[in-house]
Amino acid sequence: MRNDVLLDDDRRERIGIDEAVFSQTKSDDQLLAIARQAAASGSGRLFTRLAAGQFAAIDAQLAGAMDYDPVSRTGIIGPVMPRRNGGRVAIVTAGSSDLPVAREAARTLLYHGQAATELHDVGVAGLWRLMSRLGELSGANGLIVVAGMEGALPTVLGGLLPLPIVAVPTSVGYGVSGGGRVALESALASCAPGLTVVNIDNGYGAACAMLRILPAVTAAATARARPHG
Amino acid sequence: MRNDVLLDDDRRERIGIDEAVFSQTKSDDQLLAIARQAAASGSGRLFTRLAAGQFAAIDAQLAGAMDYDPVSRTGIIGPVMPRRNGGRVAIVTAGSSDLPVAREAARTLLYHGQAATELHDVGVAGLWRLMSRLGELSGANGLIVVAGMEGALPTVLGGLLPLPIVAVPTSVGYGVSGGGRVALESALASCAPGLTVVNIDNGYGAACAMLRILPAVTAAATARARPHG
Amino acid sequence: MRNDVLLDDDRRERIGIDEAVFSQTKSDDQLLAIARQAAASGSGRLFTRLAAGQFAAIDAQLAGAMDYDPVSRTGIIGPVMPRRNGGRVAIVTAGSSDLPVAREAARTLLYHGQAATELHDVGVAGLWRLMSRLGELSGANGLIVVAGMEGALPTVLGGLLPLPIVAVPTSVGYGVSGGGRVALESALASCAPGLTVVNIDNGYGAACAMLRILPAVTAAATARARPHG
Amino acid sequence: MRNDVLLDDDRRERIGIDEAVFSQTKSDDQLLAIARQAAASGSGRLFTRLAAGQFAAIDAQLAGAMDYDPVSRTGIIGPVMPRRNGGRVAIVTAGSSDLPVAREAARTLLYHGQAATELHDVGVAGLWRLMSRLGELSGANGLIVVAGMEGALPTVLGGLLPLPIVAVPTSVGYGVSGGGRVALESALASCAPGLTVVNIDNGYGAACAMLRILPAVTAAATARARPHG
Amino acid sequence: MRNDVLLDDDRRERIGIDEAVFSQTKSDDQLLAIARQAAASGSGRLFTRLAAGQFAAIDAQLAGAMDYDPVSRTGIIGPVMPRRNGGRVAIVTAGSSDLPVAREAARTLLYHGQAATELHDVGVAGLWRLMSRLGELSGANGLIVVAGMEGALPTVLGGLLPLPIVAVPTSVGYGVSGGGRVALESALASCAPGLTVVNIDNGYGAACAMLRILPAVTAAATARARPHG
Amino acid sequence: MRNDVLLDDDRRERIGIDEAVFSQTKSDDQLLAIARQAAASGSGRLFTRLAAGQFAAIDAQLAGAMDYDPVSRTGIIGPVMPRRNGGRVAIVTAGSSDLPVAREAARTLLYHGQAATELHDVGVAGLWRLMSRLGELSGANGLIVVAGMEGALPTVLGGLLPLPIVAVPTSVGYGVSGGGRVALESALASCAPGLTVVNIDNGYGAACAMLRILPAVTAAATARARPHG
Amino acid sequence: MRNDVLLDDDRRERIGIDEAVFSQTKSDDQLLAIARQAAASGSGRLFTRLAAGQFAAIDAQLAGAMDYDPVSRTGIIGPVMPRRNGGRVAIVTAGSSDLPVAREAARTLLYHGQAATELHDVGVAGLWRLMSRLGELSGANGLIVVAGMEGALPTVLGGLLPLPIVAVPTSVGYGVSGGGRVALESALASCAPGLTVVNIDNGYGAACAMLRILPAVTAAATARARPHG
Amino acid sequence: MRNDVLLDDDRRERIGIDEAVFSQTKSDDQLLAIARQAAASGSGRLFTRLAAGQFAAIDAQLAGAMDYDPVSRTGIIGPVMPRRNGGRVAIVTAGSSDLPVAREAARTLLYHGQAATELHDVGVAGLWRLMSRLGELSGANGLIVVAGMEGALPTVLGGLLPLPIVAVPTSVGYGVSGGGRVALESALASCAPGLTVVNIDNGYGAACAMLRILPAVTAAATARARPHG
Repeated sequence: MRNDVLLDDDRRERIGIDEAVFSQTKSDDQLLAIARQAAASGSGRLFTRLAAGQFAAIDAQLAGAMDYDPVSRTGIIGPVMPRRNGGRVAIVTAGSSDLPVAREAARTLLYHGQAATELHDVGVAGLWRLMSRLGELSGANGLIVVAGMEGALPTVLGGLLPLPIVAVPTSVGYGVSGGGRVALESALASCAPGLTVVNIDNGYGAACAMLRILPAVTAAATARARPHG
Repeated sequence: MRNDVLLDDDRRERIGIDEAVFSQTKSDDQLLAIARQAAASGSGRLFTRLAAGQFAAIDAQLAGAMDYDPVSRTGIIGPVMPRRNGGRVAIVTAGSSDLPVAREAARTLLYHGQAATELHDVGVAGLWRLMSRLGELSGANGLIVVAGMEGALPTVLGGLLPLPIVAVPTSVGYGVSGGGRVALESALASCAPGLTVVNIDNGYGAACAMLRILPAVTAAATARARPHG
Repeated sequence: MRNDVLLDDDRRERIGIDEAVFSQTKSDDQLLAIARQAAASGSGRLFTRLAAGQFAAIDAQLAGAMDYDPVSRTGIIGPVMPRRNGGRVAIVTAGSSDLPVAREAARTLLYHGQAATELHDVGVAGLWRLMSRLGELSGANGLIVVAGMEGALPTVLGGLLPLPIVAVPTSVGYGVSGGGRVALESALASCAPGLTVVNIDNGYGAACAMLRILPAVTAAATARARPHG
Repeated sequence: MRNDVLLDDDRRERIGIDEAVFSQTKSDDQLLAIARQAAASGSGRLFTRLAAGQFAAIDAQLAGAMDYDPVSRTGIIGPVMPRRNGGRVAIVTAGSSDLPVAREAARTLLYHGQAATELHDVGVAGLWRLMSRLGELSGANGLIVVAGMEGALPTVLGGLLPLPIVAVPTSVGYGVSGGGRVALESALASCAPGLTVVNIDNGYGAACAMLRILPAVTAAATARARPHG
Repeated sequence: MRNDVLLDDDRRERIGIDEAVFSQTKSDDQLLAIARQAAASGSGRLFTRLAAGQFAAIDAQLAGAMDYDPVSRTGIIGPVMPRRNGGRVAIVTAGSSDLPVAREAARTLLYHGQAATELHDVGVAGLWRLMSRLGELSGANGLIVVAGMEGALPTVLGGLLPLPIVAVPTSVGYGVSGGGRVALESALASCAPGLTVVNIDNGYGAACAMLRILPAVTAAATARARPHG
Repeated sequence: MRNDVLLDDDRRERIGIDEAVFSQTKSDDQLLAIARQAAASGSGRLFTRLAAGQFAAIDAQLAGAMDYDPVSRTGIIGPVMPRRNGGRVAIVTAGSSDLPVAREAARTLLYHGQAATELHDVGVAGLWRLMSRLGELSGANGLIVVAGMEGALPTVLGGLLPLPIVAVPTSVGYGVSGGGRVALESALASCAPGLTVVNIDNGYGAACAMLRILPAVTAAATARARPHG
Repeated sequence: MRNDVLLDDDRRERIGIDEAVFSQTKSDDQLLAIARQAAASGSGRLFTRLAAGQFAAIDAQLAGAMDYDPVSRTGIIGPVMPRRNGGRVAIVTAGSSDLPVAREAARTLLYHGQAATELHDVGVAGLWRLMSRLGELSGANGLIVVAGMEGALPTVLGGLLPLPIVAVPTSVGYGVSGGGRVALESALASCAPGLTVVNIDNGYGAACAMLRILPAVTAAATARARPHG
Repeated sequence: MRNDVLLDDDRRERIGIDEAVFSQTKSDDQLLAIARQAAASGSGRLFTRLAAGQFAAIDAQLAGAMDYDPVSRTGIIGPVMPRRNGGRVAIVTAGSSDLPVAREAARTLLYHGQAATELHDVGVAGLWRLMSRLGELSGANGLIVVAGMEGALPTVLGGLLPLPIVAVPTSVGYGVSGGGRVALESALASCAPGLTVVNIDNGYGAACAMLRILPAVTAAATARARPHG
């Protein structure tokens, strides 16, 4: 019996996204083995849901090898991918409690060479906060909209802007909204047409969805930019 | 063994609201007995969830005694209560599929002597429809907001207007929103403070809640209007 | 990337209610930043779901600036709003385990200038406790009824009194009632007409609902009190 | 392959209760075979959830052999068991829509030789209806309490009377209470100590529970009545 | 604002059962106040779901006043009620993990003056363990059957014995059975007729149900024992 | 746009099981196209969940080509596979309402050349029915156990016999057991070790599971039967 | 009181998508009014979930005005939008029962001027069907993947292709998968990074999501194609 | 009252599987008693879900008697059963977080004398990892397939290999897949025919299922290997 881990190492080549290490349910031994392998290979690795204690166990052995962000609980062993030219992504949150999930999306994009801007605390209970920033948002190529509780923000944005929108419901809330089910289903049931949705608290997945959309943009652009394409 | 029905006949005196007859799970025999009793007593009775076939069975025996509205599936055996002076109620819907529930609320208010205005199809996916009517709504003393699917309308209204709001989730939708759970929980989890909520499709209950709020208005007004009260 | 928080600062003007800080899912850094801003601005701020440890972190920096109540886990940075003349609110609990939620409602009303009386431990298993206090309750302009487990108390009160009732289900219970679902759905499904309901454990929201109802009372009263209004 | 049905024929001897035929999910062929066997054997058989159409199929072949009650959808092929001396059972309903389930309990008791009284429409929204009949109920040896919607009636009765109470939640309701879950869980979570509960709409089961309780009464009584027992 | 607790002190007189103190969601202050009151009044009080730490807080002030059992987490401040003559109760468990719930039932009976025997580890996966003890169980006047996981034990016993059976589902299990839902619903859906059920882990409630059944036995016995009754 | 259907035609070769046609959600046009193709190819095809009306539509065009069984709602277009020597399968039901699902399993085995015996109505409420047939069952190589309601039968059998057991929960029941969730989860949570489970009402799947187990038996037997294998 | 319907008529201008008429919960009167308005205005309208009977009611009044497709239950009153140059969309289904949902997506794209190709019956139980078509799929700019039951197809495709993928779970299935919850949650929980998901059976929404993605492609392409952009 | 534990000691003889001790909900006292009894009897005992702290409490008293594996949290007091000749079992995982459950299955097989091979990290998002090992897997007599999140691995394997497959869903995941429900229901709803399923995280149960299947193989093999059997 062995504890080895077999990563999907040609995923980057197949789909342009690296296999991230979902750390929450892995043992310190497993995480350290993966981190060592990444540091040795020089190919980069993203760790998500990495608790502070888990990071400490890695850092004790591989001091300085990992760039850790405690807000999003993500760790990056470099190098990250080269900067993309794929367009502009805006990450929007309804409330400040949604920040960790938004930051996980931002860090995932960063790792894959894609920049993003963040706009926080524009939940619909104070609609003026959102309306005053619409012009700014309309210039993006895609929106990642992060919201917990009743999750109305993606619906309102979806009715106002023609962009691709990936809604990320969060587990922020209590009572009926504890765990994020309401925000998830609210986004799925939206009366605004064409919203897409990822799992609760899945900032990583929303970023990956944008990575799928934006390279497609680039590819199509390239094809059409050629006179005889 | 007997099939008699014992209505709560002094409810009007205790709480100002008549016991309505929830018809959906009653037999034709039970409904006819209640209708006969109401027609004979001359005290009025409201029937909710009365299917067209159920109404026909009553009408065959008591032709003309009942005023039936097929949209809301409500029947009224008069007389209705005298007109109240309690304030203004606006009933707002997100989409035209919410009409039957809104109309049930309107008919319940009508039976109890309370007028109401209706404003339809102002769901948040086309926010301009709502914003252009805000002034009109702000003049009401209370709002009944009827919405299915993701149910974002009560939240947006709750952030814009200081009025008492009773949200009525509806079972309009499919997939995750089929049956109305998402709209219900979205209203309960709202980031807009102070929304109140009733059961799914419960237009009757929302009207009764308004009847509790508006007489309180009257009572308080009367007390304060007297110099030595 | 920044951690700033953007509060909905004109909410008080729009709807008469301040944005409260839902503290449970915020970091100490976020809470301290908001508290500093409130203390500096002199405009007051209410914190809900503020754990003792979170309060300690704030108090270490802003000693004495916050009035903290450990039972309801609420913190208030003054000044509170001026005393209202809007009527009388009674807060009723089924059992002593419902006290924290009831107290959150009371503190929210206090912050907004609205007084309230509390009546505890009148659950329906010992109906005499409730019946002996009915006269007292009937003098209020609105009831906040806080109950966990099977949540029968709002239904019984709703059948006895004509007042506006906001039911607050609590997560008190275990087995099927753990988390508060039964109390919530019991209030929503009540056979007593016109109950309104807020989210589980949402004392804050129930208080805000009352704040919406009572000013309406005042406004209507004023209008009618004028002979030529 | 065969369609034969193997009934648990010595159940009456083991536990004093006959195996009833749950007809809802049986084919007409299966039901007719069982009815023939019962009519031929002369030992009696109770059919529950027997739709009118199913009864008609049996009656076409065995005219007059079955006593059918359309309200409870029960059919009895006699003879019923001899009259018991076990005590008095009262069956109480919250609303007239609960009648079919209450009647199923009454018919099951009747089949097993146990009489019962019925008291209808005493739901707690009109508490006076219940309070005025308490004396009558307190004379029974056991209560079967049938209630849908929020299901508060068993809780109120459980706080007032020391009797064995079997709560039967019903599927009467809509929205959150559609299907009977709220009434079921409300009874299970009751703050009144010592309520027992059976499945939703299970009038048959409630009656069987009483049949278990009352013979025990008789046996114990007999034992104690003998000076040298 | 006050923290006082209002117990239902005439519950014993009304229904023969004392109000127990559900300690899990009460503060140490509340528990100590109740304990002091009980110790001073000399009337006895039962505490359920009392964690070891909560007991320690009471014991530090009222050393020796409370009899605490860590397995069932129950505390008793005496005196207990006088010994009853109501019959024999057997408490049966499917597995040794069900012991705490069974013991809570036993302690509740003990407090109310009713003795009980316990039989453990007779789950149906090893049916011989149960079959070899059937004779012993058949001599009881009522069974409390405690089972988690798939909860098949009450069903098997219900098919074998004619006694009143109160099934207590437990939260023992994991995956689909974690929390006790499967055991609860398995008992409610049982093919054995006449089982009654209480809430998950509710040993206290099962004991109270038996206290309702057994005095009824006594009363009926007394009535019939009189020649001219 | 086309309506063609692409069947997985080499499934039989890969895994020894033919792709069956799940008919419930297919249109008459789709079903007829598949049936024609099967009849023409001479390779056989099994249809499950084929309503009587659907069969009639096929039979009107391909009279006599399909062997239809209304109890299990299965249709077979021959030829079936050659008789296997894989062992003996027994199909056991708790109640006669479980017959359609049991028969679907039997018909699926028949189509694949595997015989089976059926034993009906041996639910655990009448344990003697099961115990008297244990010897017979112990001679099988595998059991398919079909049960609805509380689903205790697979657990009891699993504790008594060492055979491979595939539990098939059925949707037979009402209230909490309506739809089959309780029977499903009861089998999954069983205290009897090593039960395996398939989807609710999935007689087809249970048969396929047996087809996977029994050929393995044959293969292993063949290997070991050869002296030099 | 009026039955008028207020459509969001400038939605096309705002977000490039027309408001479709969700017909399932609308009355014949409402549908006819909308159809008349569309036919008169000459601006086009898409109707989804339009039952055959509803179509007949419209067609009786506006013969020939609507192009109705019974498989997808969609109706189109022309003109449709002009043909786009936005890229290629492939719609993939797991089984032939998923056809109606896939066709709803195709018809929605068609209405908005976007062509699409369809590939059916490539569910993962017969993996060769999918693998043999991978090259064809890899040439698309976006995939709509329609699957019911366990919903594994989007996950397998997401691991193989770098394209934007919108998963549409369908309600095809029974038992645990009846209603589509499993397929929905399977897509949301996918181990393949960057899948996006819409509501169950929401072919319309998936098409709208693609309409958001592909114009973004065009816009970005245009921008980059200009040397000095 | 006593704390003794009654194990099902002839289970090995009846069904070939020992009763394992589910340790999670047992007290240290109960575990120590069982461990002492096992060590004294010399008959062997398997402990599952044994936390490190629980093991330490046993080890402090019975140093060296138990072989503990922290990954699977299993403890074995020897001797284990003699080596079987029943065939080959392969245990396959989708991701490295599934290792503890897989290892529980392996240790359970080991205890019962059955060897197994393990193959890890072959989830379908990187399909090449699985395809490259198919040949190896096809030589086994049975597969235990362990997967969390969306749980697609058993479906893909079921479509490729004709072997008996026991799917073990795991609680690995978050949001909708937290707790393992999606993986469970995905396996139950699989479009691959004949998968069988056990409870979430139930590695022990999957191993026991294999122990039921493989001896049947042996028995059948033996019978057929004899010329005149």
